[in-house]
Amino acid sequence: MKIELKHLEDLALGSVFLATGGGGDPYVPRLIAEQAIKQFGPIEVIDPSELNDDAYVVAIGSVGAPTVSLELLPSVEDAANTLAAFEKHVGKTVDAVASFEIGGGNSLIPLVAAAGRGLPVIDGDGMGRALPEAQMMSYAIAGVKPTPALAYDYAGNIATFSTNSTEVYERHIRSLAMAAGGMITTAEHPMSGRELKDSIIPGTLLFSIKLGQTLRENRGLATDMLAPLQALFKDSIYGECRLIYTGKVIDKATRIVGGYDIGEATIESFDSSDSPLSVSIKNEYLLARKGEKVVTSVPDLIVIVDYETSTPINAERLRYGQRVAVFAVGCPQFYRSEQALKVVSPRCFGFDFDYVALEDI
Amino acid sequence: MKIELKHLEDLALGSVFLATGGGGDPYVPRLIAEQAIKQFGPIEVIDPSELNDDAYVVAIGSVGAPTVSLELLPSVEDAANTLAAFEKHVGKTVDAVASFEIGGGNSLIPLVAAAGRGLPVIDGDGMGRALPEAQMMSYAIAGVKPTPALAYDYAGNIATFSTNSTEVYERHIRSLAMAAGGMITTAEHPMSGRELKDSIIPGTLLFSIKLGQTLRENRGLATDMLAPLQALFKDSIYGECRLIYTGKVIDKATRIVGGYDIGEATIESFDSSDSPLSVSIKNEYLLARKGEKVVTSVPDLIVIVDYETSTPINAERLRYGQRVAVFAVGCPQFYRSEQALKVVSPRCFGFDFDYVALEDI
Repeated sequence: MKIELKHLEDLALGSVFLATGGGGDPYVPRLIAEQAIKQFGPIEVIDPSELNDDAYVVAIGSVGAPTVSLELLPSVEDAANTLAAFEKHVGKTVDAVASFEIGGGNSLIPLVAAAGRGLPVIDGDGMGRALPEAQMMSYAIAGVKPTPALAYDYAGNIATFSTNSTEVYERHIRSLAMAAGGMITTAEHPMSGRELKDSIIPGTLLFSIKLGQTLRENRGLATDMLAPLQALFKDSIYGECRLIYTGKVIDKATRIVGGYDIGEATIESFDSSDSPLSVSIKNEYLLARKGEKVVTSVPDLIVIVDYETSTPINAERLRYGQRVAVFAVGCPQFYRSEQALKVVSPRCFGFDFDYVALEDI
Repeated sequence: MKIELKHLEDLALGSVFLATGGGGDPYVPRLIAEQAIKQFGPIEVIDPSELNDDAYVVAIGSVGAPTVSLELLPSVEDAANTLAAFEKHVGKTVDAVASFEIGGGNSLIPLVAAAGRGLPVIDGDGMGRALPEAQMMSYAIAGVKPTPALAYDYAGNIATFSTNSTEVYERHIRSLAMAAGGMITTAEHPMSGRELKDSIIPGTLLFSIKLGQTLRENRGLATDMLAPLQALFKDSIYGECRLIYTGKVIDKATRIVGGYDIGEATIESFDSSDSPLSVSIKNEYLLARKGEKVVTSVPDLIVIVDYETSTPINAERLRYGQRVAVFAVGCPQFYRSEQALKVVSPRCFGFDFDYVALEDI
């Protein structure tokens, strides 16, 4: 299948839904992707299974605090230049490009990188959602090394990294992102086709388009959106989808701490007998609680949408006074394994309890 | 000339004096340099003029907050591994190694890097003292580009940098130093023999040995040390040397801010009629004031020594209760040029006045 201009709106919409608040604002990346398709033609998307085992793949995207993505806008050349500099650094040619996470910006950037080179983009990503740290990627969890990796900043400055530890990589790349204005483009976790097949969360790119289509075609009240969403998620790698809350944002604050957007939002229910919902944020919506009671937690997906239109709202655009609905979606099975929960359970974010799957709450 | 075991004590002593509080603790680097000389033999030091114009030279040393150098000790292999990784990165062999600053640690690390490879070390450095930021180096001021540069951390993780701006390089490398525990080894500002000759502060390595010898042979009260020091500095690139204060440290505090040791020391005079001397610190001693009156300022050298023995004391070892003397030494003429003062004048450190040369105060 090829991604054409007509797919971009749905892709941006659906990927922001799956990004659970993070992944970067899609507005400018979408304009850049449009420009790339106009210039270079539709972008080929291939299933992981179509890739040769000995193909050479690299993941490309933005790293930083999503609030920065509203102000430090990516340029048309960032993605392509990052890929070109990476290939020069490793002295090899890349056969395909992958996403490291589903996100408004981060689903589109690999397309832009691939377009100019006529490379295919892999249908899938390294998280099946967005998550704030590199070691939380399925590639890393499955044992793919993070480096050689290359970072490219808004001014064209380049840094490369070499380490066997994804935690170290995350610390170093995050510190560079901060020093370089809060947001950089990286090419990282290079891997063989075989490694990609063994580690990717498959199908999420085309699923994002279908999800965006569902959101667009049923545009309207979140309460009415539940049924079409459930129909779509039921047969996907996600499964469960619930509408867990409707209300008004009465407080939202994040600060950039250590290169992440960290903070909390509080939503007051339309139903005055219900307790307020507090949502903890580290780039993404990680935890929804009523008082001490957990309603949904990472790695399951917490999605905040506009109540009237069901348009998903990234954390950096969530504001006091917005009328919203909160959906909870089960995470891909990959993230419920013991191995994955070691790096993505609520405890990994400093919350003092274990993960309980959405269906068991 | 060759640096032998017998020179290391004087080199460490003299370079700590010139480092004006910064440059890193010399204790462990000296042990490592001893080990290197025992294993590989004496280390050749050559005058910049002996270098071919088309030779390829790189500056090597530690970057970080000097307080960290007391706890995150360099390993025997750091310097050699940094050089080897740098050569692999640029795909070229280095002909000689230079210092980026005179400092307890940073005068010794290039020797260690050179020893294992049988390379010469250049007699000179990029500051004629120590200063906290890369763009303050004479190499940078003369137009040498900071990159390709390579950083090596305590665990052997590697990062490389590519930028044309030394200010950007300083920001990126400093952020990595922080993320990697506070101290890294870097190879940077690669240059030709011609560029080195045009930018280096010459002769400071062998001068440090002579200075150390003077301090050792005249070991005793700072008031008695003044005459031998003046005799030595008079005919050097430094010129002026004054004893500006004697007293007791009554307060000293630094914090690591942005990867630098930032703070102040206050010294109370032995002569009760004199005002206390406050010394501002950013890794190095930058500014000595009595109330609002400036006594000495960067780029001139402010050197704090033990009062009884005249042993220079690095800022990270300065403590409440120490009886000290403060010397002021004129900086090399290079640093009094308009071009240099753009990046090393008191205003570059946030102090609201212009530089006045020591002799004119």
